[in-house]
Amino acid sequence: MITMSGNTFGKAFRITTFGESHGAGVGVVIDGCPSGLELSEEDVQIELDRRKPGQSSITTPRKEEDKIMIVSGVLDGKTTGAPIAMYAHNRDKDSSKYLEFINKPRPSHGDFAYREKYGHYDWRGAGRYSGRETLARVAAGAVARKLLAKAGIEILGHTVSVKGVEVRDVSIEDIRANVESNPIRCADKKAAEKMEAEIQNARESGDSLGGVAEVIALNVPAGLGDPVFDKLDADIAKAFMSVGAIKGVEIGSGFSASSMLGSENNDPFVIEDGRVKTKTNNSGGIQAGISNGMPIVARAAVKPTSSISKKQDTVDLEKMENTTIEVKGRHDPCIVPRVLPVLEAMLALVLVDHAMRSGLIK
Amino acid sequence: MITMSGNTFGKAFRITTFGESHGAGVGVVIDGCPSGLELSEEDVQIELDRRKPGQSSITTPRKEEDKIMIVSGVLDGKTTGAPIAMYAHNRDKDSSKYLEFINKPRPSHGDFAYREKYGHYDWRGAGRYSGRETLARVAAGAVARKLLAKAGIEILGHTVSVKGVEVRDVSIEDIRANVESNPIRCADKKAAEKMEAEIQNARESGDSLGGVAEVIALNVPAGLGDPVFDKLDADIAKAFMSVGAIKGVEIGSGFSASSMLGSENNDPFVIEDGRVKTKTNNSGGIQAGISNGMPIVARAAVKPTSSISKKQDTVDLEKMENTTIEVKGRHDPCIVPRVLPVLEAMLALVLVDHAMRSGLIK
Amino acid sequence: MITMSGNTFGKAFRITTFGESHGAGVGVVIDGCPSGLELSEEDVQIELDRRKPGQSSITTPRKEEDKIMIVSGVLDGKTTGAPIAMYAHNRDKDSSKYLEFINKPRPSHGDFAYREKYGHYDWRGAGRYSGRETLARVAAGAVARKLLAKAGIEILGHTVSVKGVEVRDVSIEDIRANVESNPIRCADKKAAEKMEAEIQNARESGDSLGGVAEVIALNVPAGLGDPVFDKLDADIAKAFMSVGAIKGVEIGSGFSASSMLGSENNDPFVIEDGRVKTKTNNSGGIQAGISNGMPIVARAAVKPTSSISKKQDTVDLEKMENTTIEVKGRHDPCIVPRVLPVLEAMLALVLVDHAMRSGLIK
Amino acid sequence: MITMSGNTFGKAFRITTFGESHGAGVGVVIDGCPSGLELSEEDVQIELDRRKPGQSSITTPRKEEDKIMIVSGVLDGKTTGAPIAMYAHNRDKDSSKYLEFINKPRPSHGDFAYREKYGHYDWRGAGRYSGRETLARVAAGAVARKLLAKAGIEILGHTVSVKGVEVRDVSIEDIRANVESNPIRCADKKAAEKMEAEIQNARESGDSLGGVAEVIALNVPAGLGDPVFDKLDADIAKAFMSVGAIKGVEIGSGFSASSMLGSENNDPFVIEDGRVKTKTNNSGGIQAGISNGMPIVARAAVKPTSSISKKQDTVDLEKMENTTIEVKGRHDPCIVPRVLPVLEAMLALVLVDHAMRSGLIK
Repeated sequence: MITMSGNTFGKAFRITTFGESHGAGVGVVIDGCPSGLELSEEDVQIELDRRKPGQSSITTPRKEEDKIMIVSGVLDGKTTGAPIAMYAHNRDKDSSKYLEFINKPRPSHGDFAYREKYGHYDWRGAGRYSGRETLARVAAGAVARKLLAKAGIEILGHTVSVKGVEVRDVSIEDIRANVESNPIRCADKKAAEKMEAEIQNARESGDSLGGVAEVIALNVPAGLGDPVFDKLDADIAKAFMSVGAIKGVEIGSGFSASSMLGSENNDPFVIEDGRVKTKTNNSGGIQAGISNGMPIVARAAVKPTSSISKKQDTVDLEKMENTTIEVKGRHDPCIVPRVLPVLEAMLALVLVDHAMRSGLIK
Repeated sequence: MITMSGNTFGKAFRITTFGESHGAGVGVVIDGCPSGLELSEEDVQIELDRRKPGQSSITTPRKEEDKIMIVSGVLDGKTTGAPIAMYAHNRDKDSSKYLEFINKPRPSHGDFAYREKYGHYDWRGAGRYSGRETLARVAAGAVARKLLAKAGIEILGHTVSVKGVEVRDVSIEDIRANVESNPIRCADKKAAEKMEAEIQNARESGDSLGGVAEVIALNVPAGLGDPVFDKLDADIAKAFMSVGAIKGVEIGSGFSASSMLGSENNDPFVIEDGRVKTKTNNSGGIQAGISNGMPIVARAAVKPTSSISKKQDTVDLEKMENTTIEVKGRHDPCIVPRVLPVLEAMLALVLVDHAMRSGLIK
Repeated sequence: MITMSGNTFGKAFRITTFGESHGAGVGVVIDGCPSGLELSEEDVQIELDRRKPGQSSITTPRKEEDKIMIVSGVLDGKTTGAPIAMYAHNRDKDSSKYLEFINKPRPSHGDFAYREKYGHYDWRGAGRYSGRETLARVAAGAVARKLLAKAGIEILGHTVSVKGVEVRDVSIEDIRANVESNPIRCADKKAAEKMEAEIQNARESGDSLGGVAEVIALNVPAGLGDPVFDKLDADIAKAFMSVGAIKGVEIGSGFSASSMLGSENNDPFVIEDGRVKTKTNNSGGIQAGISNGMPIVARAAVKPTSSISKKQDTVDLEKMENTTIEVKGRHDPCIVPRVLPVLEAMLALVLVDHAMRSGLIK
Repeated sequence: MITMSGNTFGKAFRITTFGESHGAGVGVVIDGCPSGLELSEEDVQIELDRRKPGQSSITTPRKEEDKIMIVSGVLDGKTTGAPIAMYAHNRDKDSSKYLEFINKPRPSHGDFAYREKYGHYDWRGAGRYSGRETLARVAAGAVARKLLAKAGIEILGHTVSVKGVEVRDVSIEDIRANVESNPIRCADKKAAEKMEAEIQNARESGDSLGGVAEVIALNVPAGLGDPVFDKLDADIAKAFMSVGAIKGVEIGSGFSASSMLGSENNDPFVIEDGRVKTKTNNSGGIQAGISNGMPIVARAAVKPTSSISKKQDTVDLEKMENTTIEVKGRHDPCIVPRVLPVLEAMLALVLVDHAMRSGLIK
């Protein structure tokens, strides 16, 4: 009988998501979107299509149509200022394979913790803690991106490592040019090939892989964010860590700062073209929680997909005895490429929220 | 004229901090603390003394008394359920040295971004974005820890690396035994010596160092946290990243998960002593955003202190020309040991908030 | 481009409504409903049917099916703890009659104020500020009532006056017995007849009437509500005043207290059946914002329906000149009977929110 | 052990109050005040002096200095955007007289309900639910009024009835001229005399009186408020009802609308001086929850002071038997004049919050 009440994100641009992986559908209500923004279902669908399964040989062959409907808040092609509700029916549901896990929690899934909290397990699939909920975030993020684009802000995501294979230095141009041309969403084509090979290996052995995703926001003006709890980087950290497979978040130099000297990590100011910039960007565009005008750079550690077909130890909760399971099914061996649109959406949601709070977007 | 509105943290156990580094003082109002908790100023002072400057040769020689007063919410030695306001006067303020930075922002400090946002700079010191604000968090955290202790939950912090010097595997017993016995707050005495040497080197060369801090919560029952936005790990990530010098946060295996196989990173369930546990704890005690009964393990990357006495490049914002500064003064060359009590407080605040939301504490 | 962000109500049991009167439909997302509550679409439909138009000769002949769908949050007939989304398609929409009001705001409707705020007018009907939005509140209220019923709390509403015709003292038994047996929802059958005559008169003359609605909650235990801003009566006042036609709210003796002596208005305590009660209930069950165990009694002043077919003065906003309009259409001459289920829902939402905040419902 | 968590009011301009009547003091933290506003302790003290006891023969002879200190958020005479904490020590405390009420709740006070909720009674006085808490609201309201004044908005309050003695129609000029010239704060001098006589009578007989207070906001532009839950009138209703002695709230024609025809109550639009106005103002300046440019007019029903020296029936909670008490002490026989500055402050807080939400104040 204990409640779940953390389904809203944001303060000025607030989203509330609803729906389960194997229920009727998944949706979101946006409260606080300014009126007068041109918005169509196509604008949203484009982003959903980047997230959907079945895009390539390295992602799950599940087909989810993920066709979005805008239910409210838009009139004559423009937002009205009223809540924007969006919704996608669930298709291609096959819950039967989950029946065996009712009493045998899958390792590193939420099955056990969820059941301990709510006193039940949604035998139809992960239910509310399924990755499918992120569809609603990407839909809301599409609206956020349109607002940000009007303010000149662009968001880019790319894969920076998979199972230890790292990209060499890639430029913004590399990212723009290459990310959508390979299934890894990697801006370094050579690294992309090695990563793809690693992923195919893992798939063949019934295993899975992790990696690191990076998301960058360009043209964010100085002044977004608050200096205490609602630091821009703090809100990004929460936003990213609230995505299922994420185990770590870093901004700018991140964990590498821990082995640097101050004289190496500090970003000296310099005047360029009449504007104040920093020579380096170890701060990742954020100082004291407030954007400083440099690109926002955030990275997330993505764990290997928990669903693997190898035999694993687990317990039978009814018999209270040790047992084993194999999680067969249609799973992504490496979720990094599909998590990127979700992280981009989360960064967009944080930025639009702070842009509204500071009056940049109104 | 743009506003700052992110000075409140938590939903059920909510804290609002106020005060500036060189203003009259710093304080906090806790709203939502249950009635009937025994609470004295000494309970709070103990934690503040662990945070205060001047504790050892490796911290700043500034003396801040940080004497806490409980202003409201406590009657006859017990909380009443009313807001608990706590306050510490500022002492030993010396603002004169900051005058030279009015137009010359210190690299990797908030000076520039803050000024861009609010249109002014608190020439008396970092003002609201000073580390001194964390005093208020530690005071609130002391109350949170008392509530958690009644529920059997213990929080421990220790330094796991400084400038690349890492601890070997340390046990909970090592942490309990050794952390308060060396100025690094490191549970591995040998590593502590090397870290101290690194810090003294950096101090002598006018430079600073970063490191990694780890905070652990023991005896957290399964079921705390929400599965979507208010994941327990998401709230920890925000809590940690909202502390000044933090550039990265990870839970359990964290960034190392990105180069692991699923079969390595997954935590198999096992029955031990009639209870469900996991053989490994790469999940850091949290699955799908909900605690699973294993220890909560979170780490934060601490950047090298931004204030260094070496000459640095910066700009003169009035003349709009390049210039240099040296940030003399009484600064910690490595903030990791003093940031630990702050991170412990933030973890306590997150846990008590979710414990109240789930009915564990009431 | 200014935003609308107040579409969420409640703290622990939070509802967010969406949809417009002449858009695709109207819905609500409930976040925070405990898991394990039996809930069917029929449970909700019963309450919606009490609100819907076309119930009798004194209400609008518009037919709105208002068929509710539960989209998420319920599995195998029980709530799961996940957000409960509910939705009703709009039917029988006829927007054509609204075209003439695009530039001629209807007196005492929101047309003018809304347009000033958002820069547009939803020509399809009142849009977001239509009474149709209250459908979503009643749906959420049905869930709240089920939770309250489990705690033994009952909510009753009845009409206490229409155009100055007042009920004589009616008992709880009168209310239970008579309210649903006449179209006025009046517990005093004689008064109901006079009220009905007044309403028919007004209808025939193209005019409308106001009245007063009373809502009572029985068996609310002492201890719900907070003593400062979130007083139980303060939250009821907001809840009621947020319903379209309401111009006043009072608790217990209400406005009549303003002409009483303290010795008349004070409620003496007395022990009855081993329990502490008050001899009178001028406090309406709430003292210092906290329930005292007596029935909660709240009343709302309902203004005459703004839509009347009599000719009225208004302005042409495009030509900026004075003009007149007649608001033809299918309107309720007196909204009191149909506003009652909405007020009952709002009281249920306030009570369940505070019951959860105090741990009574969990 | 149940918590009190409703000590914050507002969304954009948020205040959190703390302190008890007989504790160390009372204070408030404002979060969200824009930077750059000129603010001194004198600006705040002026408003506090209007609220303080001991102003005239009809108010309590208690002397409370209520000397305000600004603790944070102001630098060089201007707000910085950081939280503004303000605090007043309690003086002239005499808790001894309250000892007898520990087990004998005073009728229509919060003593019983509070004790039921929190499990204890603050024997030093009403504690958190004392009227003294409103000092903090008035202090915050003084800041809100300064912001509103910059936007041209003026707030006026006056007494419109005491024990059934009502003012005749008074103009804005009457209010400005007369309110501070008589102890009743009544704009109609003749009525003021009758009211004063009534109050003196009540005082002499150990009884108390209620009344009605009206607060008006002038020059509020169209467009403040939201059309659904956060209606401007809904937020005013909550704001007023959250003040201790208030039992009813009405906007514009209020409860009298319940006996009017639509053709009488509707406010026809008309163009005057090139601007859209309404001929009447039964809407009280608010339509569909949004200001329409006409004066905001709100009234509150003030109950007779609960503390009366006449003998009253109550119960002994320890012995669980009926008994009697007399509440001696220094109480206002009629609180209306002193509650006016509190209601004015609450209206200012609601308006500044919505003015910030809509971008009018930034």
